[in-house]
Formats: sequence, C-alpha cells, structure tokens
Amino acid sequence: MTTQQTTPTSLPVRSLEPTGAEVPSTVPTHWYNLAADLPEPVPPHLHPGTREPLTPDDLAPLFPLSLVQQEVTTERYVEIPQTVREIYALWRPSPLVRARRLERALGTPARVYYKYEGVSPVGSHKPNTAVAQAYYNALEGTTKLTTETGAGQWGASLSFAGALLGLEVEVWQVRASYDAKPYRRAQMEVYGGVCHPSPSDLTEAGRAMLAADPDTTGSLGMAISEAVETAAKDPAAHYALGSVLNHVMLHQSVIGQEALVQLDEAGEGAPDVVFGCAGGGSNLAGLTFPFLGRNLREGTTTRLVACEPAACPSLTQGEYRYDFGDVAGLTPLLKMHTLGKDFVPPAIHAGGLRYHGMSPMVSHAVNLGLMEATAVEQDDAFAAGTLFARAEGIIPAPESTHAVAAAIAHARAATEPEVIVLGLSGNGVLDLPAYAAYV
Amino acid sequence: MTTQQTTPTSLPVRSLEPTGAEVPSTVPTHWYNLAADLPEPVPPHLHPGTREPLTPDDLAPLFPLSLVQQEVTTERYVEIPQTVREIYALWRPSPLVRARRLERALGTPARVYYKYEGVSPVGSHKPNTAVAQAYYNALEGTTKLTTETGAGQWGASLSFAGALLGLEVEVWQVRASYDAKPYRRAQMEVYGGVCHPSPSDLTEAGRAMLAADPDTTGSLGMAISEAVETAAKDPAAHYALGSVLNHVMLHQSVIGQEALVQLDEAGEGAPDVVFGCAGGGSNLAGLTFPFLGRNLREGTTTRLVACEPAACPSLTQGEYRYDFGDVAGLTPLLKMHTLGKDFVPPAIHAGGLRYHGMSPMVSHAVNLGLMEATAVEQDDAFAAGTLFARAEGIIPAPESTHAVAAAIAHARAATEPEVIVLGLSGNGVLDLPAYAAYV
Repeated sequence: MTTQQTTPTSLPVRSLEPTGAEVPSTVPTHWYNLAADLPEPVPPHLHPGTREPLTPDDLAPLFPLSLVQQEVTTERYVEIPQTVREIYALWRPSPLVRARRLERALGTPARVYYKYEGVSPVGSHKPNTAVAQAYYNALEGTTKLTTETGAGQWGASLSFAGALLGLEVEVWQVRASYDAKPYRRAQMEVYGGVCHPSPSDLTEAGRAMLAADPDTTGSLGMAISEAVETAAKDPAAHYALGSVLNHVMLHQSVIGQEALVQLDEAGEGAPDVVFGCAGGGSNLAGLTFPFLGRNLREGTTTRLVACEPAACPSLTQGEYRYDFGDVAGLTPLLKMHTLGKDFVPPAIHAGGLRYHGMSPMVSHAVNLGLMEATAVEQDDAFAAGTLFARAEGIIPAPESTHAVAAAIAHARAATEPEVIVLGLSGNGVLDLPAYAAYV
Repeated sequence: MTTQQTTPTSLPVRSLEPTGAEVPSTVPTHWYNLAADLPEPVPPHLHPGTREPLTPDDLAPLFPLSLVQQEVTTERYVEIPQTVREIYALWRPSPLVRARRLERALGTPARVYYKYEGVSPVGSHKPNTAVAQAYYNALEGTTKLTTETGAGQWGASLSFAGALLGLEVEVWQVRASYDAKPYRRAQMEVYGGVCHPSPSDLTEAGRAMLAADPDTTGSLGMAISEAVETAAKDPAAHYALGSVLNHVMLHQSVIGQEALVQLDEAGEGAPDVVFGCAGGGSNLAGLTFPFLGRNLREGTTTRLVACEPAACPSLTQGEYRYDFGDVAGLTPLLKMHTLGKDFVPPAIHAGGLRYHGMSPMVSHAVNLGLMEATAVEQDDAFAAGTLFARAEGIIPAPESTHAVAAAIAHARAATEPEVIVLGLSGNGVLDLPAYAAYV
C-alpha cells in the first residue's frame, strides 16, 4: 500500500452550515447574560473623543453587528448557533471533577471540585469565545480577523477558530512572549494564523512605540493598538478581543452554566465558595456569573472570589474609573478597575494575567460588593499548582494556579464539610519552563 | 484575604485504596487479551543466556508478580482494579469523534472516525499502562520504578502515575531528546520524577557506551539497558516498559474496547478499516486488538493497518526473528519484527516511533496475516497532520500523523460510504517545533 500525497489546503473552505453532528443536550443551548440580573446597569463604554456612550456605528469598523448587539444587550439568554454548539461539542461539556486525591492530601473536610477547561484543543477556555466571534464575523462577511496575544493562548484560540470557520487570522504577540514562547507561535501557524511580534513596524502605533523605545519588550496594551489599527484600515477585516468586553463574558458563561448542572447531578446544592483566576476577567466571569445570577435571582449565598496575581493587582490595588483598553488610546473608554493604561507589569510567568485593566462587568460586580477579590503571590501559586499536579494529575496553567492556591488555602482552613469550586482555566503544558524554574 | 503558604509535599502519601469516586459504566471493567483468540500461541520470550522460555522467576527482579502473570496469561479478560478505573475516569472513555469537517474537506463518501487519546493528562495513550503498572508495583511493595523514554511521553506518563500512586520514578531519556525537548523533562519533574540523559555515567551500561562513543546522542535501546540495570541492582526498585511487552498491549486494550462500544452507539457495524500508528506497537494493539478478536471470534472482516514511519520500518522492512529489546543485551529475547538491536534510526521527528523492534503480539499477528502494515514518509505525515488540525481543530502527535496520513489517503480514494477508524494516539502540543519546521 502506498500512501498518497496529502498536501494541506491553506485553509478549509468556509463552511458555516452545521455538519449535522449530534450535539449532547449537556452542551448549553444559550449563553447567560449577567446584565439581566444586576441591580444596577453596567456603566456604558464611552467614545474616546466625545466621552459620550458608544453607538453601534462607533463599533461597526471593529466588530460585526451581532457582537455589537451582544455587547449591550440586557436579555438574560442569547441562543447559541448550532454550528458553534457543534464545535463546542469537541470538548464541551468540560469536566467538573471532585478532587478526592487533593482532599485526601490536604486532610480537609471540604468537598473540592474543579471545572476543567484545559480539555479544549488549545488547552484553555479561550476557544469558547473565539469560536463564537469567528462565527458571527464569518456570517457577516468578514474575511480576516486581527487580534493581540500575550502568552499566546488567545492568538492560538482565534487561529483555531479561524481554521474551522474559514477566516484569515493575523496576530500581534507581545514581543517578550514572541521571543520566549515559540511553541505558541507554532501552534498559531499550524492552524494557518500569522503572528507578528509587537511592537512591529507594520502599524503607525507600532512604529511610534519603536521610535520611543527601540528595545521595548511590548505589552498587551501596545499589541491591542496594532491589531485595532490594522482592522480599522481594512474594510474586510475586523478585530477580536479575547477578554474584557461584555460579549466575551457572555460567551464564557457556558463554563458556569455547565458547572451549575454538574453540581446538581453530583447531589450538591449551591456551593459555599467559587474561586476563579482573573486577568482580563473572562474565565472568572464565565465560571462565576451563572452562580452570581442565581444568588441575585434566588437568594443563594455562594461566595465568588476573583484570584489575581499580586504583581498585577487591578482589582485589589487599581482605581475604578474610565480608562483606555490599549496604550495608544484607540479603544473606547471602559469603566473598570485599572492600574493605568501605561502600566507595564513585571515579567511574571502568568502571561495571561498581565493586563492593566479588568472586565467592566467584573469590575462592576466587585464594586457593588457582589464578588470578592484576592491577590496571590507567584511562589504560592506555583507551589499550589505543583501540589495539584501531583495529587490530581493535571498540571494547571500558571493563570489557573492563582485560583488553585486560594482554594487550597481555603480548604486547609475548613473545619466543616463545605463545598468549594475552583476554575481550572487551562493546562500548563506549554508553560512547563515556568514550572521548571519553580520546581 | 491572605493566601496561606502551600508548600507541596515531595510526593502524596501512597494511597492505593479507591477514593470512592463514581466511575462511569463506560470505562471498561476488564482488559481484553488477544492471546485468548489467536489461532496460534504467541512465541514465548526466551532467556538471553539459556535461550529457554522465560520462567516467572527470571522476570521477578524486574516486574511484580501480577505483571509477570499478565505477560503470559491466555485468559480473555483481566479485571481492572477499581483504583485504576478511578484514575482512568479522569480521561476515559476517551472520545470517538466523527471527523465531519475532515470528510467535507476531502469530499469523501467515507465516514471517518477518530479515537482520541490526547485528552489524558500527559496528552497520549501511555498513561493507560503507566497507571496499571504503577498500581501493581505499589501493591506488591515496590517503592521506585525505573524506565527509559524517547521523546518523553512515556517518562512523563510514568511520572504522572508515580505521583498519584506514591512511587519514585527515575527516567533515562535518550540524549538527543533530553537536549531538544526540555518541556517533557519539566513535565516529569513537576510530577516529581527524576530524569537523566542517556547514556549516563550512572550505570555500567551507560559508562561503556560513553567510552565507546563519547558523543553518542543515545537510543531507546541504550536507555533501556540503563533503566534495567538500575532496577535489577535495587531490591526496592522495579523496571517499567511503555510498549512492546504483552502486558502493555493488554492494558492498552481499553482504547479499542471503548471504540467498539462507541461505534455501536453511533449506529455503525464493524468498520471497514482501522488505521493505527506503530512504534513499539502499544497504541496500535490497544486500538486494533479488540477489533481483531472480534474478527477471529465472530467472522467480521475489519481490516487492521499498522502505519509506521518509512525511516524506521520494522514491520515492512525488518526481519521476524528473536532479538534483544535493548542494546546491551540485558533483556529477554523477543520474537519480533526487528531492524536489529544496534539499529540507530535517523533523527526523524516522530520520537515515539524510533524503536528497532515491534511488539511480539503485533509481530505475530502481522506474521499470521491478521494485520497489514504500511510505511509512511514523514512529509506526508506532517501534511496530513496539518490538514487534520485545520479541519478538526486537534493537532495530532507526530506519531499519530502516520495513521492520519494513511486514513486520509484511503478516504480520498474511497468511492463507497465505508467506515474508517483512525487512532489519534496523542496530541502534538509538545511537538510544535517539529510542525513549525514542516509548516
């Protein structure tokens, strides 16, 4: 038998119709929108020039109409397109697992559950929104998406979604990560994505930044400026953001909605406390908002705790005010907890948590006292991640270890059989050198 | 809130009792043993000195009694201990997915299914036997396991199993991979494993090899010699092999047993053809032996195809004869397809397929005409892997791409709606530089 040549097509043909695959009923049919249940509305995004609330027209150069509508809707549920559900079904529902070996190692009376997003093809929760964003863009005729990425999870996720839904993807990756993490860049390229280091000489914003500091290692805020500028200049291109915005929080709600059902199936009532790691806020919101909505609608009292790195503490140390999402000031003004758009975080390993701001919805919930926040030192985070790996077998993403550390500390202090849920936003397979430096 | 210090214990306390977790009924309760259904018995392993069939006493210095018994049993089913099933349930049953997007991209009338082992915590099928071997060793009092590893999947899998079941793990990794693949070494270390480059100066075999060729980049056969020597000299240590031996094929049978049930649930009868990649043979055997057993018992006619690299073609180019499993000649003599124990494969990327020999059970099945074999060129393999990634979203392990290439070629040529199953033995996340070199 001779194997025929199997030259890959550059990208599969765009195909937005469902394939007809059977999707399990346990994959959510709708996204949940916390805005429907909040006691006060989320402050609107403002136009950077006029400081007036944004109109849909303001966002049209960057986003398709469906996503603009999702950014401002107060409907409680938004239907998930069947094509998106089919792709979700490749890894959803993600597992909710009781960490019995970890409980045994800690000697805790608490029951500890982890919700694990690392089973997705790129190893994190990011594809939950990447697939949705790519779908609506493709449906409305976009042929190219631009975006930024830090450690690379988001750029890889959008490249994955672009491959399956027939979109070109162009990514600006923070220079420090571009140089240090070649695996993530290769991941984008296997999916057909194109990745540039940021700042680059491909954009006005990038050239200005390089002129000001030729040796800069970049930041997410800089990379956002380059991706936004490129999309705004190309009528066939749109921009995609992997966190922070309201529609991203909406898409990630599949995490917490599944967890509610899975806890019910495990015979647990409302958990006592849920820990999620927080960078831009999307994993945290995805996991906790469905629990928060139930608290608000039904009077349950589940505590919700945002776990952020002590080195980039927007919720615990930042101001709650309007600020730009990027360095160049090209984005709308967002009401959020911020360390200031020019904040350059120290080179901590948890790349995905290195952002100066925080999701306006998460910021609003914390400001209203509906959620708590805690800062975790990096050494504690890696120690917790290593303990978790040796007990449960999964090496958590560095981002996720912040939630693991807070949950372990809580479980160690527990004297009652309370129920703890922690969000494992991804696996740490492509962050092993960071662990090696710790171990 | 202040996070408490969470210093990891060096290893969790050994705990072989089940935790009481509910294990889905879809996780197999027994391993399937092809030896019960073969028309002729598998040729016995021979003592390297006497050339007589091995006795259990001969293997006692290296393996626990349970595994020695499993090596020679002809019982059709062996019960899986509940503690092993609980750990399996972290990722089992692994998904069987119909590759509808790939079918659409190929325009094939065939229905293509992939059985995906990359959802395990280390990303491949190897933990299926690592957990079983660690369990029986721990049960019989072993405190340390030694092994060899090539690309590192097996070393990481055994380290993972050792962490969960309370065993020290010491790994000799082929020097070329030790230097080129620091991520895998870090993975072993996060799980508490210790990893040496091979040849090392820690063993007589290693010192002799270094004396003969100080610049050698090593081979699996060399690394086996070092691990075997170390285990044989330490009464508390045993040796573990990740492929080749009969008990490894037994443990991997969970793959194919699940696939049989999953195909039934999908409404398919016996598939027309199953493609599995073949290095030492364990993934291939795990996937195909349950289908082969059904062919032999029930007269189904599923074709079973071993897909090996053209650069290391033991089945298609090797001799079928008794040979050693290692370079130094410390192992028993195994009747197998072999390129000769001193064969040093070219530095192809698919590290897990770089072995001079082949599982005696697989070799026997091929020799009896019950299975076929084909050799795949590396460029075809990576092209197929890239196409698969862009259509289905999963980046296959380089080893798996050999099966993907053969399956794609078959699907392209299909004129009838036949049913194709391919084994995706792992994901390629830690092999992305190899893809980058191709892309």
